[in-house]
Amino acid sequence: MTVDRCAEFRALHHGAAPLLLPNAWDHASAAALGDAGFAAIGTTSLGVAAAAGRPDAEGATLPETLRLARSASRLPCPLSVDIEGGFSADPAGIATVVEELAGLGVAGINVEDGRPDGTLADLSTQTEVIRAIRAQVPEIFVNARTDAFWLRTEDPLREALRRSSAFTEAGADGVFVPGIATDEDISPLVAHSTAPVNVLFLPGRHTVAGLAALGVRRISLGSLLFRAALHATVETARAIRAGEPVGAGLPGYADVVALISRF
Amino acid sequence: MTVDRCAEFRALHHGAAPLLLPNAWDHASAAALGDAGFAAIGTTSLGVAAAAGRPDAEGATLPETLRLARSASRLPCPLSVDIEGGFSADPAGIATVVEELAGLGVAGINVEDGRPDGTLADLSTQTEVIRAIRAQVPEIFVNARTDAFWLRTEDPLREALRRSSAFTEAGADGVFVPGIATDEDISPLVAHSTAPVNVLFLPGRHTVAGLAALGVRRISLGSLLFRAALHATVETARAIRAGEPVGAGLPGYADVVALISRF
Repeated sequence: MTVDRCAEFRALHHGAAPLLLPNAWDHASAAALGDAGFAAIGTTSLGVAAAAGRPDAEGATLPETLRLARSASRLPCPLSVDIEGGFSADPAGIATVVEELAGLGVAGINVEDGRPDGTLADLSTQTEVIRAIRAQVPEIFVNARTDAFWLRTEDPLREALRRSSAFTEAGADGVFVPGIATDEDISPLVAHSTAPVNVLFLPGRHTVAGLAALGVRRISLGSLLFRAALHATVETARAIRAGEPVGAGLPGYADVVALISRF
Repeated sequence: MTVDRCAEFRALHHGAAPLLLPNAWDHASAAALGDAGFAAIGTTSLGVAAAAGRPDAEGATLPETLRLARSASRLPCPLSVDIEGGFSADPAGIATVVEELAGLGVAGINVEDGRPDGTLADLSTQTEVIRAIRAQVPEIFVNARTDAFWLRTEDPLREALRRSSAFTEAGADGVFVPGIATDEDISPLVAHSTAPVNVLFLPGRHTVAGLAALGVRRISLGSLLFRAALHATVETARAIRAGEPVGAGLPGYADVVALISRF
């Protein structure tokens, strides 16, 4: 099944429309998004970390990430897992984590070059990581992320183009550049990259149609849904405290029970 | 600290206004509700179970419940934990679970008499559970829940009154009757009970002010906030897919990071 799910997930990057990938952080959010008919589901390391009360992007959530990955075999669509920097200091250790994820039915992974200290990993180190994953887990979709824009490097587009080429040559199936915002930056990245380009959806700045027109092949929602959920939690409680009406359109207790029993 | 938090939590049942208790299911939801100034936070077993992909009310989530309880010492207010039927077949085992929770800084627990097969636990068995908890963990606030209304027993008010008395005599600090809806049922329960009465907030049916006027001392939100969060997750993803605007008013990435580092 895993190999089929990997092939299915890979094909979604080459369809008529870009892959819109909503990101889950626990089984319930993954099940609800699968039930809503999304073609694949990603995970958000911020959501996973915050739900567990841990810091994001510091390699602190391997147990939680593996727990969430167990949902893969229950979902109606492929699951791609954000592994931050890889949860290990060396390429072989990272490849072993990815192999474990593939064994749980995970169809893809994101691995990032941003480091907890706010710098980018050395490019040769990062390509070694990608090669190690590729060699050990040939079937999984490897989405190589560069944080060149997020970490405000001096010339982020130039750095992203350079890394995109190197990552693809090392065997990455896709290139993810979160934080890239303007048409002027996205167009050259798409023109340059031989692998499908993944962009982080920025509310108020991007639309799915606009990114599709630029040639983006995958649109991730990152932590946006997690933040929407957290916002709804607090705002619903505040509304009840203030005597305002709440509850319209919400799933009932039995709906949630049925969702979890289906997926 | 635990004893102080228990005393603080107990006092909240005897203030000028009823205690409005929003229910969390992971660290992030608990931290966000604490940050929003609620005086105490409960947990929702449905939310904990669904987040982990497990069934609710079947005793399947002890590890997840203990993990969530670890948040108690990081929150700015008392945390009361829903332990379903107690995660053990015998009263001594249940008391040991509660002792472990108290050791983590938990100020109160909910223990329910509804059984996975849809029947109410034998009353003498349930009072034995409450006595065992009371004896082993004297400081913790024990909220004894009867599912007489939820399980549609023949004369639910009569059964709730009978159980309320027995639970209080066994040492319960409070009585929780989820599913009780009408003034005609709530008023006699409040008049009858010598312990603070806890009602589940039913949207569209209850208001905080209305329940306060009836003499209710604690108002729980149960799984409502979890369901609101799940709804927001899916609706935000759907809106992006449909090209509708999203993201207004949401916390940013840095806001979530700051929240988790504060609590």
